[in-house]
Amino acid sequence: MKHAPLVQDLINAFTCLPGVGARSAQRMSYWLLERNRQGGSRLATALSAAMEGVEHCPQCRNFAEQGLCPVCQDQRREQGLLCVVESPADVLAVEQSGEYRGRYFVLMGHLSPIDGIGPRDIGLDLLEQQISSGAVAEIILATSTTVEGEATAHYILDLTRNTDVSVSRIAQGVPMGGELEFVDGVTLAHALRGRQKVPPSF
Amino acid sequence: MKHAPLVQDLINAFTCLPGVGARSAQRMSYWLLERNRQGGSRLATALSAAMEGVEHCPQCRNFAEQGLCPVCQDQRREQGLLCVVESPADVLAVEQSGEYRGRYFVLMGHLSPIDGIGPRDIGLDLLEQQISSGAVAEIILATSTTVEGEATAHYILDLTRNTDVSVSRIAQGVPMGGELEFVDGVTLAHALRGRQKVPPSF
Repeated sequence: MKHAPLVQDLINAFTCLPGVGARSAQRMSYWLLERNRQGGSRLATALSAAMEGVEHCPQCRNFAEQGLCPVCQDQRREQGLLCVVESPADVLAVEQSGEYRGRYFVLMGHLSPIDGIGPRDIGLDLLEQQISSGAVAEIILATSTTVEGEATAHYILDLTRNTDVSVSRIAQGVPMGGELEFVDGVTLAHALRGRQKVPPSF
Repeated sequence: MKHAPLVQDLINAFTCLPGVGARSAQRMSYWLLERNRQGGSRLATALSAAMEGVEHCPQCRNFAEQGLCPVCQDQRREQGLLCVVESPADVLAVEQSGEYRGRYFVLMGHLSPIDGIGPRDIGLDLLEQQISSGAVAEIILATSTTVEGEATAHYILDLTRNTDVSVSRIAQGVPMGGELEFVDGVTLAHALRGRQKVPPSF
Protein backbone atom coordinates (compact mmCIF):
# COMPACT_ATOMS: atom_id res chain seq x y z
CA MET A 1 0.00 0.00 0.00
CA LYS A 2 1.34 3.36 -0.98
CA HIS A 3 0.60 6.33 1.23
CA ALA A 4 0.64 9.81 -0.22
CA PRO A 5 4.34 10.84 -0.06
CA LEU A 6 3.83 13.56 2.57
CA VAL A 7 1.98 11.07 4.78
CA GLN A 8 4.71 8.47 4.34
CA ASP A 9 7.38 11.08 5.19
CA LEU A 10 5.48 11.95 8.35
CA ILE A 11 5.16 8.30 9.41
CA ASN A 12 8.89 7.75 8.83
CA ALA A 13 9.76 10.90 10.77
CA PHE A 14 7.69 9.82 13.78
CA THR A 15 9.72 6.64 14.20
CA CYS A 16 12.64 8.77 15.46
CA LEU A 17 10.81 9.01 18.80
CA PRO A 18 11.71 6.54 21.56
CA GLY A 19 9.31 3.61 21.71
CA VAL A 20 7.48 4.57 18.53
CA GLY A 21 7.49 1.90 15.82
CA ALA A 22 5.95 1.88 12.38
CA ARG A 23 2.47 1.10 13.66
CA SER A 24 2.33 3.79 16.35
CA ALA A 25 3.86 6.26 13.90
CA GLN A 26 1.04 5.55 11.48
CA ARG A 27 -1.58 5.91 14.19
CA MET A 28 -0.11 9.26 15.30
CA SER A 29 0.08 10.55 11.73
CA TYR A 30 -3.51 9.58 10.94
CA TRP A 31 -4.77 10.96 14.22
CA LEU A 32 -3.20 14.36 13.60
CA LEU A 33 -4.31 14.49 9.96
CA GLU A 34 -7.87 13.46 10.74
CA ARG A 35 -8.55 15.19 14.01
CA ASN A 36 -5.96 17.65 15.14
CA ARG A 37 -4.10 19.49 12.39
CA GLN A 38 -3.82 22.54 14.62
CA GLY A 39 -2.13 20.47 17.30
CA GLY A 40 0.17 19.01 14.67
CA SER A 41 1.18 22.43 13.43
CA ARG A 42 1.78 23.60 16.99
CA LEU A 43 3.97 20.56 17.58
CA ALA A 44 5.94 21.34 14.41
CA THR A 45 6.56 24.90 15.59
CA ALA A 46 7.51 23.85 19.14
CA LEU A 47 9.83 21.17 17.78
CA SER A 48 11.79 23.36 15.43
CA ALA A 49 12.00 26.15 18.03
CA ALA A 50 13.31 23.73 20.66
CA MET A 51 15.72 21.85 18.38
CA GLU A 52 17.32 25.11 17.32
CA GLY A 53 16.90 27.24 20.44
CA VAL A 54 17.62 24.96 23.39
CA GLU A 55 21.21 25.13 24.49
CA HIS A 56 23.05 24.11 27.63
CA CYS A 57 23.31 26.24 30.76
CA PRO A 58 26.92 27.50 30.91
CA GLN A 59 26.96 26.85 34.65
CA CYS A 60 25.24 23.50 35.18
CA ARG A 61 24.92 22.12 31.62
CA ASN A 62 21.17 21.49 31.99
CA PHE A 63 18.87 22.57 29.14
CA ALA A 64 18.50 26.33 28.91
CA GLU A 65 17.96 29.01 26.31
CA GLN A 66 20.37 31.91 26.10
CA GLY A 67 22.21 31.97 29.38
CA LEU A 68 21.52 30.37 32.74
CA CYS A 69 18.81 27.75 33.28
CA PRO A 70 15.88 28.55 35.62
CA VAL A 71 17.51 26.76 38.58
CA CYS A 72 20.85 28.55 38.23
CA GLN A 73 19.02 31.89 37.90
CA ASP A 74 17.18 31.28 41.17
CA GLN A 75 19.12 33.22 43.83
CA ARG A 76 17.17 31.58 46.66
CA ARG A 77 18.94 28.32 45.88
CA GLU A 78 21.87 27.43 48.13
CA GLN A 79 24.73 28.40 45.82
CA GLY A 80 27.50 26.36 47.41
CA LEU A 81 25.59 23.06 47.35
CA LEU A 82 25.92 21.05 44.16
CA CYS A 83 24.07 17.87 43.23
CA VAL A 84 25.76 16.01 40.35
CA VAL A 85 23.36 14.02 38.16
CA GLU A 86 23.61 12.32 34.78
CA SER A 87 20.61 13.78 32.94
CA PRO A 88 17.94 16.52 32.97
CA ALA A 89 15.36 13.84 33.83
CA ASP A 90 17.36 13.13 37.00
CA VAL A 91 17.12 16.83 37.91
CA LEU A 92 13.34 16.56 37.67
CA ALA A 93 13.32 13.42 39.81
CA VAL A 94 15.37 15.14 42.54
CA GLU A 95 13.20 18.27 42.33
CA GLN A 96 10.06 16.20 42.72
CA SER A 97 11.41 14.71 45.94
CA GLY A 98 11.05 18.21 47.39
CA GLU A 99 14.13 17.58 49.55
CA TYR A 100 16.73 19.62 47.73
CA ARG A 101 17.38 23.34 47.61
CA GLY A 102 20.87 23.58 46.11
CA ARG A 103 22.12 23.78 42.54
CA TYR A 104 22.82 21.00 40.05
CA PHE A 105 25.55 19.89 37.75
CA VAL A 106 24.21 17.84 34.84
CA LEU A 107 26.77 15.58 33.20
CA MET A 108 24.57 14.68 30.19
CA GLY A 109 25.99 11.16 30.36
CA HIS A 110 28.57 9.22 32.31
CA LEU A 111 32.17 8.15 31.85
CA SER A 112 32.31 5.29 29.39
CA PRO A 113 35.76 4.66 27.92
CA ILE A 114 34.34 1.85 25.74
CA ASP A 115 32.12 4.40 23.93
CA GLY A 116 34.90 6.97 23.88
CA ILE A 117 33.22 9.19 26.46
CA GLY A 118 35.88 10.81 28.61
CA PRO A 119 35.84 13.44 31.39
CA ARG A 120 35.70 16.44 29.01
CA ASP A 121 32.70 14.97 27.15
CA ILE A 122 30.62 15.08 30.31
CA GLY A 123 31.84 18.52 31.37
CA LEU A 124 34.14 17.45 34.18
CA ASP A 125 36.64 20.15 33.19
CA LEU A 126 33.91 22.72 33.89
CA LEU A 127 33.12 21.04 37.21
CA GLU A 128 36.80 21.05 38.14
CA GLN A 129 36.94 24.81 37.46
CA GLN A 130 33.96 25.39 39.74
CA ILE A 131 35.54 23.28 42.47
CA SER A 132 38.92 25.01 42.28
CA SER A 133 37.32 28.47 42.14
CA GLY A 134 36.02 27.83 45.66
CA ALA A 135 32.38 28.34 44.66
CA VAL A 136 31.39 24.85 45.80
CA ALA A 137 31.19 23.93 49.47
CA GLU A 138 29.44 20.57 49.22
CA ILE A 139 28.86 18.02 46.47
CA ILE A 140 26.17 15.34 46.50
CA LEU A 141 26.98 12.59 44.01
CA ALA A 142 23.67 11.39 42.53
CA THR A 143 24.94 9.53 39.49
CA SER A 144 23.32 6.18 38.66
CA THR A 145 24.15 3.09 40.68
CA THR A 146 25.49 1.41 37.55
CA VAL A 147 29.14 0.55 36.92
CA GLU A 148 29.55 3.68 34.78
CA GLY A 149 27.72 5.86 37.29
CA GLU A 150 29.92 4.60 40.13
CA ALA A 151 33.08 5.13 38.09
CA THR A 152 31.95 8.68 37.31
CA ALA A 153 31.24 9.31 41.00
CA HIS A 154 34.73 8.08 41.92
CA TYR A 155 36.32 10.28 39.28
CA ILE A 156 34.55 13.34 40.70
CA LEU A 157 35.55 12.34 44.22
CA ASP A 158 39.17 12.41 43.00
CA LEU A 159 38.70 15.97 41.70
CA THR A 160 37.90 17.12 45.24
CA ARG A 161 41.02 15.70 46.88
CA ASN A 162 43.13 18.42 48.50
CA THR A 163 40.12 20.78 48.61
CA ASP A 164 37.72 21.68 51.42
CA VAL A 165 34.70 20.44 49.49
CA SER A 166 32.65 17.94 51.45
CA VAL A 167 31.39 15.11 49.24
CA SER A 168 28.57 12.64 49.84
CA ARG A 169 26.88 9.92 47.80
CA ILE A 170 23.09 9.49 47.90
CA ALA A 171 22.10 6.51 50.05
CA GLN A 172 21.75 3.15 48.39
CA GLY A 173 19.30 0.77 49.94
CA VAL A 174 15.84 -0.71 49.85
CA PRO A 175 13.29 1.42 47.95
CA MET A 176 10.27 2.74 49.87
CA GLY A 177 7.27 0.44 49.64
CA GLY A 178 9.43 -2.40 48.41
CA GLU A 179 8.95 -5.84 49.90
CA LEU A 180 12.20 -7.26 51.13
CA GLU A 181 11.80 -10.61 49.41
CA PHE A 182 11.79 -8.94 45.99
CA VAL A 183 14.89 -6.82 46.57
CA ASP A 184 18.00 -8.09 44.78
CA GLY A 185 21.06 -9.22 46.73
CA VAL A 186 23.37 -6.38 45.69
CA THR A 187 20.87 -3.74 46.82
CA LEU A 188 20.31 -5.59 50.08
CA ALA A 189 24.06 -5.82 50.68
CA HIS A 190 24.29 -2.04 50.19
CA ALA A 191 21.32 -1.50 52.50
CA LEU A 192 22.95 -3.57 55.24
CA ARG A 193 26.35 -1.94 54.85
CA GLY A 194 24.73 1.52 54.92
CA ARG A 195 22.53 0.83 57.97
CA GLN A 196 21.97 3.81 60.22
CA LYS A 197 21.69 3.87 63.99
CA VAL A 198 18.12 4.49 65.14
CA PRO A 199 18.01 7.51 67.46
CA PRO A 200 16.58 6.79 70.94
CA SER A 201 13.67 9.14 70.25
CA PHE A 202 12.40 6.98 67.36
CA MET B 1 10.32 22.52 38.76
CA LYS B 2 10.55 24.98 35.92
CA HIS B 3 11.79 23.78 32.55
CA ALA B 4 13.29 26.24 30.13
CA PRO B 5 10.24 27.74 28.32
CA LEU B 6 11.06 26.19 24.93
CA VAL B 7 11.37 22.77 26.55
CA GLN B 8 8.08 23.23 28.38
CA ASP B 9 6.38 24.29 25.14
CA LEU B 10 7.69 21.17 23.45
CA ILE B 11 6.46 18.89 26.25
CA ASN B 12 3.01 20.50 26.12
CA ALA B 13 2.87 20.19 22.34
CA PHE B 14 3.71 16.47 22.44
CA THR B 15 0.66 15.73 24.58
CA CYS B 16 -1.53 16.38 21.52
CA LEU B 17 -0.55 12.92 20.26
CA PRO B 18 -2.86 9.98 21.01
CA GLY B 19 -1.74 7.99 24.05
CA VAL B 20 0.98 10.47 25.01
CA GLY B 21 0.66 11.90 28.50
CA ALA B 22 2.85 14.37 30.36
CA ARG B 23 5.43 11.76 31.26
CA SER B 24 5.89 10.30 27.78
CA ALA B 25 5.91 13.81 26.35
CA GLN B 26 8.78 14.70 28.66
CA ARG B 27 10.67 11.54 27.76
CA MET B 28 10.25 12.24 24.04
CA SER B 29 11.33 15.86 24.42
CA TYR B 30 14.44 14.98 26.42
CA TRP B 31 15.32 12.13 24.08
CA LEU B 32 15.22 14.40 21.04
CA LEU B 33 17.09 17.23 22.75
CA GLU B 34 19.79 14.96 24.13
CA ARG B 35 20.28 12.45 21.37
CA ASN B 36 18.54 13.21 18.13
CA ARG B 37 18.13 16.88 17.29
CA GLN B 38 18.42 16.08 13.61
CA GLY B 39 15.54 13.62 13.87
CA GLY B 40 13.54 16.22 15.76
CA SER B 41 14.11 18.84 13.08
CA ARG B 42 13.17 16.35 10.38
CA LEU B 43 9.98 15.55 12.28
CA ALA B 44 9.18 19.28 12.53
CA THR B 45 9.59 19.68 8.77
CA ALA B 46 7.55 16.57 7.94
CA LEU B 47 4.81 17.65 10.34
CA SER B 48 4.34 21.13 9.00
CA ALA B 49 4.53 19.89 5.40
CA ALA B 50 1.89 17.23 6.05
CA MET B 51 -0.44 19.41 8.14
CA GLU B 52 -0.50 22.00 5.40
CA GLY B 53 -0.10 19.87 2.28
CA VAL B 54 -2.22 16.76 2.83
CA GLU B 55 -5.69 17.11 1.37
CA HIS B 56 -8.40 14.65 0.48
CA CYS B 57 -8.61 12.75 -2.78
CA PRO B 58 -11.49 14.32 -4.77
CA GLN B 59 -12.59 10.85 -5.83
CA CYS B 60 -12.32 8.64 -2.75
CA ARG B 61 -11.71 11.14 0.08
CA ASN B 62 -8.60 9.29 1.30
CA PHE B 63 -5.49 11.36 2.12
CA ALA B 64 -3.80 12.73 -0.98
CA GLU B 65 -1.77 15.73 -2.06
CA GLN B 66 -2.89 17.74 -5.04
CA GLY B 67 -5.30 15.52 -6.93
CA LEU B 68 -5.99 11.83 -6.83
CA CYS B 69 -4.56 9.50 -4.18
CA PRO B 70 -2.14 6.73 -5.22
CA VAL B 71 -4.92 4.09 -5.32
CA CYS B 72 -7.26 6.17 -7.50
CA GLN B 73 -4.35 6.98 -9.83
CA ASP B 74 -3.63 3.28 -10.32
CA GLN B 75 -5.30 2.31 -13.59
CA ARG B 76 -4.73 -1.40 -12.96
CA ARG B 77 -7.32 -1.22 -10.18
CA GLU B 78 -10.79 -2.45 -11.06
CA GLN B 79 -12.54 0.88 -11.53
CA GLY B 80 -16.13 -0.26 -11.09
CA LEU B 81 -15.53 -1.99 -7.76
CA LEU B 82 -15.81 0.20 -4.68
CA CYS B 83 -15.03 -0.71 -1.08
CA VAL B 84 -16.57 1.72 1.41
CA VAL B 85 -14.60 2.10 4.64
CA GLU B 86 -14.64 4.54 7.55
CA SER B 87 -11.00 5.63 7.74
CA PRO B 88 -7.63 5.62 5.97
CA ALA B 89 -6.42 3.04 8.51
CA ASP B 90 -9.21 0.72 7.29
CA VAL B 91 -7.89 1.12 3.72
CA LEU B 92 -4.49 -0.08 4.92
CA ALA B 93 -6.06 -3.04 6.71
CA VAL B 94 -7.93 -4.11 3.56
CA GLU B 95 -4.82 -3.59 1.42
CA GLN B 96 -2.78 -5.73 3.77
CA SER B 97 -5.24 -8.59 3.36
CA GLY B 98 -4.03 -8.78 -0.26
CA GLU B 99 -7.54 -9.80 -1.33
CA TYR B 100 -8.78 -6.61 -2.90
CA ARG B 101 -8.01 -4.99 -6.25
CA GLY B 102 -10.77 -2.38 -6.58
CA ARG B 103 -11.05 1.24 -5.48
CA TYR B 104 -12.08 2.70 -2.14
CA PHE B 105 -14.44 5.27 -0.79
CA VAL B 106 -13.29 6.62 2.56
CA LEU B 107 -16.04 8.15 4.67
CA MET B 108 -13.67 9.70 7.27
CA GLY B 109 -16.23 8.84 9.92
CA HIS B 110 -19.69 7.37 10.18
CA LEU B 111 -23.24 8.67 10.49
CA SER B 112 -23.82 9.87 14.03
CA PRO B 113 -26.86 12.14 14.44
CA ILE B 114 -26.06 12.56 18.13
CA ASP B 115 -22.74 14.24 17.22
CA GLY B 116 -24.37 16.16 14.37
CA ILE B 117 -22.62 14.07 11.70
CA GLY B 118 -24.96 13.69 8.75
CA PRO B 119 -24.61 12.18 5.26
CA ARG B 120 -22.90 15.21 3.71
CA ASP B 121 -20.28 15.29 6.48
CA ILE B 122 -19.05 11.84 5.48
CA GLY B 123 -19.21 12.54 1.74
CA LEU B 124 -22.30 10.51 0.93
CA ASP B 125 -23.41 13.18 -1.57
CA LEU B 126 -20.18 12.51 -3.49
CA LEU B 127 -20.79 8.76 -3.27
CA GLU B 128 -24.36 9.25 -4.54
CA GLN B 129 -23.00 11.16 -7.54
CA GLN B 130 -20.60 8.36 -8.35
CA ILE B 131 -23.39 5.79 -8.08
CA SER B 132 -25.81 7.74 -10.26
CA SER B 133 -23.13 8.49 -12.85
CA GLY B 134 -22.97 4.76 -13.53
CA ALA B 135 -19.24 4.53 -12.69
CA VAL B 136 -19.83 1.99 -9.94
CA ALA B 137 -20.80 -1.60 -10.68
CA GLU B 138 -20.33 -3.14 -7.27
CA ILE B 139 -20.06 -1.83 -3.72
CA ILE B 140 -18.58 -3.72 -0.79
CA LEU B 141 -19.71 -2.22 2.52
CA ALA B 142 -16.78 -2.50 4.95
CA THR B 143 -17.90 -0.04 7.62
CA SER B 144 -17.41 -1.05 11.26
CA THR B 145 -19.71 -3.58 12.87
CA THR B 146 -20.82 -0.97 15.40
CA VAL B 147 -24.28 0.56 15.60
CA GLU B 148 -23.09 3.65 13.72
CA GLY B 149 -21.22 1.57 11.14
CA GLU B 150 -24.29 -0.57 10.50
CA ALA B 151 -26.54 2.49 10.20
CA THR B 152 -24.10 4.00 7.71
CA ALA B 153 -24.06 0.77 5.71
CA HIS B 154 -27.85 0.75 5.58
CA TYR B 155 -27.94 4.36 4.46
CA ILE B 156 -25.58 3.55 1.59
CA LEU B 157 -27.63 0.50 0.68
CA ASP B 158 -30.63 2.85 0.33
CA LEU B 159 -28.65 5.05 -2.08
CA THR B 160 -28.32 2.09 -4.44
CA ARG B 161 -32.02 1.25 -4.65
CA ASN B 162 -33.34 1.51 -8.22
CA THR B 163 -29.81 1.21 -9.61
CA ASP B 164 -27.95 -1.78 -11.07
CA VAL B 165 -25.19 -1.58 -8.45
CA SER B 166 -24.65 -4.87 -6.68
CA VAL B 167 -24.02 -4.38 -2.97
CA SER B 168 -22.44 -6.73 -0.44
CA ARG B 169 -21.40 -6.48 3.20
CA ILE B 170 -18.13 -8.03 4.38
CA ALA B 171 -18.75 -11.28 6.25
CA GLN B 172 -19.22 -11.13 9.99
CA GLY B 173 -18.19 -14.18 11.94
CA VAL B 174 -15.56 -15.83 14.03
CA PRO B 175 -12.06 -14.34 13.57
CA MET B 176 -9.30 -16.60 12.28
CA GLY B 177 -7.32 -18.26 15.05
CA GLY B 178 -10.02 -17.44 17.58
CA GLU B 179 -11.11 -20.10 20.02
CA LEU B 180 -14.86 -20.53 19.97
CA GLU B 181 -15.28 -20.34 23.74
CA PHE B 182 -13.91 -16.79 23.81
CA VAL B 183 -16.11 -15.46 21.00
CA ASP B 184 -18.96 -13.25 22.19
CA GLY B 185 -22.58 -14.26 21.62
CA VAL B 186 -23.46 -11.57 19.09
CA THR B 187 -20.52 -12.49 16.87
CA LEU B 188 -21.38 -16.17 17.17
CA ALA B 189 -25.00 -15.49 16.24
CA HIS B 190 -23.78 -13.65 13.11
CA ALA B 191 -21.41 -16.51 12.32
CA LEU B 192 -24.24 -19.05 12.54
CA ARG B 193 -26.65 -16.97 10.51
CA GLY B 194 -23.98 -16.37 7.86
CA ARG B 195 -22.89 -20.03 7.60
CA GLN B 196 -21.87 -21.16 4.15
CA LYS B 197 -22.41 -24.53 2.52
CA VAL B 198 -19.20 -26.54 2.31
CA PRO B 199 -18.54 -27.53 -1.30
CA PRO B 200 -18.29 -31.31 -1.90
CA SER B 201 -14.67 -30.92 -2.99
CA PHE B 202 -13.63 -29.62 0.46
